[in-house]
Amino acid sequence: MPAEPASNNGKFEIIDSTLREGEQFANASFDTETKIQIATALSDFGIDYIRLSSPTASEQSRKDCEAICKLGLKSKILTHVPCTLEDAKLACDTGVDGVDVVISPGKDIDYINETALEVLAYIKSRGVQASFSSEDAFSTVDLLDLYRAVDRAGVNRVGVLDPVGSANPRQVNELVRDLRGAVGCEIEAYFHNSTMAVANAHAAFEAGATHIDTSVLGIGENNGVTPLGALLARMIVGSRDYVTSNYKLDTLKELEELVAKKVDINVPFSNPVTGFCAFTHKAGIHSKAILNAPSTYEIIDPADFGMNRNVHFASRLTGWNAIKTRVEQLGLTMTDDQVKEVTQKIKAKADTGPLGADDADIIIRAYHLELQAA
Amino acid sequence: MPAEPASNNGKFEIIDSTLREGEQFANASFDTETKIQIATALSDFGIDYIRLSSPTASEQSRKDCEAICKLGLKSKILTHVPCTLEDAKLACDTGVDGVDVVISPGKDIDYINETALEVLAYIKSRGVQASFSSEDAFSTVDLLDLYRAVDRAGVNRVGVLDPVGSANPRQVNELVRDLRGAVGCEIEAYFHNSTMAVANAHAAFEAGATHIDTSVLGIGENNGVTPLGALLARMIVGSRDYVTSNYKLDTLKELEELVAKKVDINVPFSNPVTGFCAFTHKAGIHSKAILNAPSTYEIIDPADFGMNRNVHFASRLTGWNAIKTRVEQLGLTMTDDQVKEVTQKIKAKADTGPLGADDADIIIRAYHLELQAA
Repeated sequence: MPAEPASNNGKFEIIDSTLREGEQFANASFDTETKIQIATALSDFGIDYIRLSSPTASEQSRKDCEAICKLGLKSKILTHVPCTLEDAKLACDTGVDGVDVVISPGKDIDYINETALEVLAYIKSRGVQASFSSEDAFSTVDLLDLYRAVDRAGVNRVGVLDPVGSANPRQVNELVRDLRGAVGCEIEAYFHNSTMAVANAHAAFEAGATHIDTSVLGIGENNGVTPLGALLARMIVGSRDYVTSNYKLDTLKELEELVAKKVDINVPFSNPVTGFCAFTHKAGIHSKAILNAPSTYEIIDPADFGMNRNVHFASRLTGWNAIKTRVEQLGLTMTDDQVKEVTQKIKAKADTGPLGADDADIIIRAYHLELQAA
Repeated sequence: MPAEPASNNGKFEIIDSTLREGEQFANASFDTETKIQIATALSDFGIDYIRLSSPTASEQSRKDCEAICKLGLKSKILTHVPCTLEDAKLACDTGVDGVDVVISPGKDIDYINETALEVLAYIKSRGVQASFSSEDAFSTVDLLDLYRAVDRAGVNRVGVLDPVGSANPRQVNELVRDLRGAVGCEIEAYFHNSTMAVANAHAAFEAGATHIDTSVLGIGENNGVTPLGALLARMIVGSRDYVTSNYKLDTLKELEELVAKKVDINVPFSNPVTGFCAFTHKAGIHSKAILNAPSTYEIIDPADFGMNRNVHFASRLTGWNAIKTRVEQLGLTMTDDQVKEVTQKIKAKADTGPLGADDADIIIRAYHLELQAA
């Protein structure tokens, strides 16, 4: 199926918000040193923009913003402020590359004309990228008018926020397509994750969004936002060259482990790419296909992320093709009929309880010894 | 935004595959007693259909099928077989309520006419539901012809499988809409989870699918399938009455913990509904909205799942509204200006390191004592 006409699947950028949204995660409390460590890792990974907690949140937040800007990272640094000149000045003074002005729900075009345009113009006058977001994205019909007004005023980017995680991909597609038709500037989309944030991000790119906000492992307020690794796992499917050349995928696991350790969580067993079972195959029919042609049951090559494929050949569901491969790995020689017979022995044993990889090897070797003795 | 015309959002059924797909999970090895325990819990939860591993997989798998059918659970019991009369007979003999005939990729209409129709007719002659699935769903253009043929032959249900997890919601919507127009029988959809299985399931229901396959916590081959809890967390948003009256949501956590224990995993920190941070709010702006009107930032009422909301009021991001609520919870009286002042004290303390709930209470009480002394 072809991509949508406005698709940005092959030329998107990522705004990582681990140091903003992630700071709102229940377990997070980042000291300056930790923030610097995470920001450096994000930059090394290839993240295009790093978003920091607002310097208006607390004095230390402001100092940390300054400290990270001074590192001279490859990633550009963003933050956000309420819509006042005083706050915009405070943010620009920290040395960030871009400031996002966020307006709370219920604001109309008069407010934009009277207040927001002045604040956005001030930010641009400081040589800093200006972007504009409303928390109303999925609830207000007049949104396009507001965004047209700030686009005409020359903002670099407008943002679509789904702060409650209520949007579905069909709604995202329609909204971003309308917005793509209405403004010339970049479009950023920020999705809270009530089960569909990756699909919403994918739909936004297909409809012409240029930037998506992520956090490492998706950490953030309650269920967080689009997880960085999951988004890349999805985008690599259609845009392998772009993703592999722009992001150091073989360090994803390390980046996730760094953040997981800092906020005292375990990487979920089911985490895309790096979860412990992401590339483990077990059932007979699947193992056969995986061995013959991995792409039949895997849309991602684990090697792209520095990971290995693991075919689990020892269970009651095991097919003889998986055992045949294991026999070969062990350097043994058997006919197909012999492999089928030892497979039955392994299945019978697995019917009696859990079976380790060692157990299956022992059965295979014992059977092979019998064959040699006969 | 209105639902699609064919939407089944308010009348879907769930086929839980924890005892089939879940048995292919890396860590899973279910003995008979465990299978009975999980099947009973699924039935008590309100699951419509329970899918079991094929009785053709091993002798114990066949015996377990029989044992679970004999329990007389409220859930109907399904299994699946390769497309042969012998396998269909074996499955019907176990006492299941339905048998799914699965054909591997590359089969054409001649194969259906010559082989599949006979097997499906046999299953129906035994008084058992017959359903039909091809693993080709997202790769073959002739799929509709095959499905029309089995629909005319009177199958109860056809299944759309995405065994590799490559589909996106837009593709699912188009495929299921085409299929909905082509067949009169029920439509089941089974999505492997490469980041978008919940969104795909939601798109399938919107396009007219009647049944979705799930597993508890999504366990299965590599990244598994649509997770039961996440799907319900999504569906309750648009169909609260249906979901709350058909499923015992306040036992979801218990059901997930049972399965997690049996396969030796932790429930992910980010698990929808039951993850430890699912209903935890921290940031100032969000906490204020949550306290005033929870639906502003939560699309799910935690009480529907027997869970609590937790506003985290002690961090450098804390707003004074959250502290005001805490002051009231502690039975203390302060003016708004006094609350703002103690909020600044808490933020300043949080800037120096992690803050426990107790720490904030101590600051509040100390400040209150100062006020009384003054």
